Amino acid sequence: MTHLQMPTPDASVLGRSQQIIKDLTALAGAEAVIADEEGRRTFETDGLTAYRCMPLAVVLPTTTEEVSRILKYCHREGIKVVARGAGTSLCGGALPVEDAVVVGVSRMNRVLEIDYDNRFIRVETGITNLGISGAVSAEGFFYAPDPSSQLACTLAGNLGMNSGGAHCLKYGVTTNNVLGLKVVLMDGEVIELGGGHLDAEGYDLIGLMIGSEGQFGIVTEATVRILKAAEGARPMLMGFGSSEAAGACVAGIIGAGIVPVAMEFMDKPAIEVCEAFAKAGYPLDVEALLIIEVEGSDDEISEMLGRIQAIAEPFGPTSILISQSAEQSAKIWKGRKSAFGAIGRISDYYCMDGTIPLSRLPDVLRRIGEICEGHGLKVANIFHAGDGNLHPLILYDANDPSSSERAELAGADILRLCVEVGGCLTGEHGVGVEKRDLMNDQFSATDLTVQIRVKTVFDPKWLLNPGKVFPLNDTQQAKDVA
Amino acid sequence: MTHLQMPTPDASVLGRSQQIIKDLTALAGAEAVIADEEGRRTFETDGLTAYRCMPLAVVLPTTTEEVSRILKYCHREGIKVVARGAGTSLCGGALPVEDAVVVGVSRMNRVLEIDYDNRFIRVETGITNLGISGAVSAEGFFYAPDPSSQLACTLAGNLGMNSGGAHCLKYGVTTNNVLGLKVVLMDGEVIELGGGHLDAEGYDLIGLMIGSEGQFGIVTEATVRILKAAEGARPMLMGFGSSEAAGACVAGIIGAGIVPVAMEFMDKPAIEVCEAFAKAGYPLDVEALLIIEVEGSDDEISEMLGRIQAIAEPFGPTSILISQSAEQSAKIWKGRKSAFGAIGRISDYYCMDGTIPLSRLPDVLRRIGEICEGHGLKVANIFHAGDGNLHPLILYDANDPSSSERAELAGADILRLCVEVGGCLTGEHGVGVEKRDLMNDQFSATDLTVQIRVKTVFDPKWLLNPGKVFPLNDTQQAKDVA
Repeated sequence: MTHLQMPTPDASVLGRSQQIIKDLTALAGAEAVIADEEGRRTFETDGLTAYRCMPLAVVLPTTTEEVSRILKYCHREGIKVVARGAGTSLCGGALPVEDAVVVGVSRMNRVLEIDYDNRFIRVETGITNLGISGAVSAEGFFYAPDPSSQLACTLAGNLGMNSGGAHCLKYGVTTNNVLGLKVVLMDGEVIELGGGHLDAEGYDLIGLMIGSEGQFGIVTEATVRILKAAEGARPMLMGFGSSEAAGACVAGIIGAGIVPVAMEFMDKPAIEVCEAFAKAGYPLDVEALLIIEVEGSDDEISEMLGRIQAIAEPFGPTSILISQSAEQSAKIWKGRKSAFGAIGRISDYYCMDGTIPLSRLPDVLRRIGEICEGHGLKVANIFHAGDGNLHPLILYDANDPSSSERAELAGADILRLCVEVGGCLTGEHGVGVEKRDLMNDQFSATDLTVQIRVKTVFDPKWLLNPGKVFPLNDTQQAKDVA
Repeated sequence: MTHLQMPTPDASVLGRSQQIIKDLTALAGAEAVIADEEGRRTFETDGLTAYRCMPLAVVLPTTTEEVSRILKYCHREGIKVVARGAGTSLCGGALPVEDAVVVGVSRMNRVLEIDYDNRFIRVETGITNLGISGAVSAEGFFYAPDPSSQLACTLAGNLGMNSGGAHCLKYGVTTNNVLGLKVVLMDGEVIELGGGHLDAEGYDLIGLMIGSEGQFGIVTEATVRILKAAEGARPMLMGFGSSEAAGACVAGIIGAGIVPVAMEFMDKPAIEVCEAFAKAGYPLDVEALLIIEVEGSDDEISEMLGRIQAIAEPFGPTSILISQSAEQSAKIWKGRKSAFGAIGRISDYYCMDGTIPLSRLPDVLRRIGEICEGHGLKVANIFHAGDGNLHPLILYDANDPSSSERAELAGADILRLCVEVGGCLTGEHGVGVEKRDLMNDQFSATDLTVQIRVKTVFDPKWLLNPGKVFPLNDTQQAKDVA
């Protein structure tokens, strides 16, 4: 990838690094502070491994009070802070800068309260996404948003990026499932928003906080909705002779008012790689595959799968396979959820994340193919088709500078295409550093100014997660604007 | 009701009123400006009729450009602005002040775009709530949030208050159904947020804007989600010997993971009044009534009603009636949706709006009865039980100052009770002037300061909808805080 410009390090902070480490140790305890080079290296990058930078120090506090003390100190001393969950961000959202302290919540992962009657769980945000469902699964409940990295990623990161997942078509993304937050602001103040009831009072600061990419504060606790698991669920595979036919079928199903739990799309290159990895029974003689999951009682499942097949008929599916066992269902999902890893075994890839209006799906798929071909690159398409959230994976060779550069150009073209057809730059992965320079394509100057002003309310010195979300020149002008 | 303190009028604005009216006429045309006393009187109050105040002038623009010109002018001249939809607010959200210009969107009510494939409609916000569904009903679609005032209230007001309704249990409230907004900021700038795709990009300013009670800008256009109507729907009436039994049954149904489309609660006083009005077949020999509606195919409806009856069994329902025809269903809903009007025919009432955790329902119902009894008043309880959104109607005599005062005290006690049990001050009606002084019960000083700072980003001179949402002393200190 090309060189990434980041805000100029503050020389006075770098010069005080030994004192800062001493101070952080006094605030959070020696076992919470990582200052040696070897330890800091673990935190130098995230899921967007193209960029790396070692932070000044890493702190892993264990209480909200410690987080508050650390932020208050950094605010007073003018030290940048990069919040971090598990570091699985695909857009560089957790990428450090060299004069920043990384504040990680991974040691704050306790379940604080489970209330089945009111269907919520209150947790510390360092808990993994799957850990939340794990805490309530014995009673037949689950937490709905399910990013593919759910085994590793933390709720903190999900909140920062408003993460989605394959099953969010029916249950909504992170912001639709959060009832309350405890947030440490940059000046160390702690605010509580919402709680174990349905609607939030006052302005919707919960909604604002979710998706703010670690730039408004550090969320240490959250109350999230838990749902009763359906009686049963069953995925179906439908293969098509063209991506256009599969895309049109998705639009047909949604247009008929049916909302499956999940509706995932894979094109031929993706199918081949995932089938080789997961042995899920994906058909290999098709150009595009839909994984459609429905849930309910056995009767409801049969009835809904029947309706979906009837709707699909005119689009000419060349193969239909309905899962016959829990084991088969697990394999089908393993293939999909391991897709990024499986493709990573055969090629470097650049994962895009944009949304489009559903009806433009067939057209957009065709043009993504043309864009990549125009740059001499292959592309594998895997995405949450039901809600128009695309994840084209551009395959390239990281050791070939020309290939890297073309991948970046193709990616930007694809995201501009999303905006052009009425969609947006980010579905569920966030802006981070990856898409900050495209924000001008999405937003007018006035739009960005309003966002910059809101950011400044929460972080007047612009110390939180610097160099992300906004184009760098806008960030540098932020103080004048605010 | 007691005297309502509002921000001190700006004498210089009042002194310039003739010039201001002349300027507004130049900006929006003579037919858009209402300046005579008779005309302005129509706008002196809203659904909270206890308070009245004639504005300096009323403008009813027809385009976003006109709204922009008006706000830009008022911003420059330091003139307060009160945005207005249909004026159905139950919390005084549209109450004018004497030195303000009311900007009403009622003439901006066009449908701009309908896209069935992508399931959205784009409208001007002066359209009525029911008008949105009306525009798409021929194709079998509808707009989900359904406040009881849906025949009259505008989308603009729904956006300002994040309105809900009886059927929001399944489909979510306003904020869950909005995809995009066009907003005129106080300085006249126009921003566009989101659009016809699923997730919003950047910070969640759409979420922030919804429920901001006309204090961040005037929304002139919105893109909202439309849903395919279910094959059929059927309400069921279940009567109980006590409010506690009905409340426990609601908790039991939700706890079992069933989500009916609507689950409404009425106690004996409410049942009697509504039955007299609507002849809906409500049982009169019960202490509490649940109206539970489910939807789907005939088979699905039968299956779900059966499950609900089985769950209800241990709570001893004394009567069960399942609607047998569309006509009967319409009557059942007419009774519920006319409840406020029907009660208004027999008594003055003060309508509360709070939320509580569902499991506290039986306990809260008992304590609401005790609170009102303690103040020597009767109460009728009608509410969206499924999501814990209470609407106790405190009956009082508006011509008796002591009765009025006791009603207000009882109301405040009930809302404090909601906060005490872990709920919040407002479910779907907003804060307005009615609940502004209770905000300190809900929020810490830090919480309020953050909200005040966000408000100041959008409206640095605090001209938009003055005297609402925040306790008045906090509002006056706002500029120091910001």
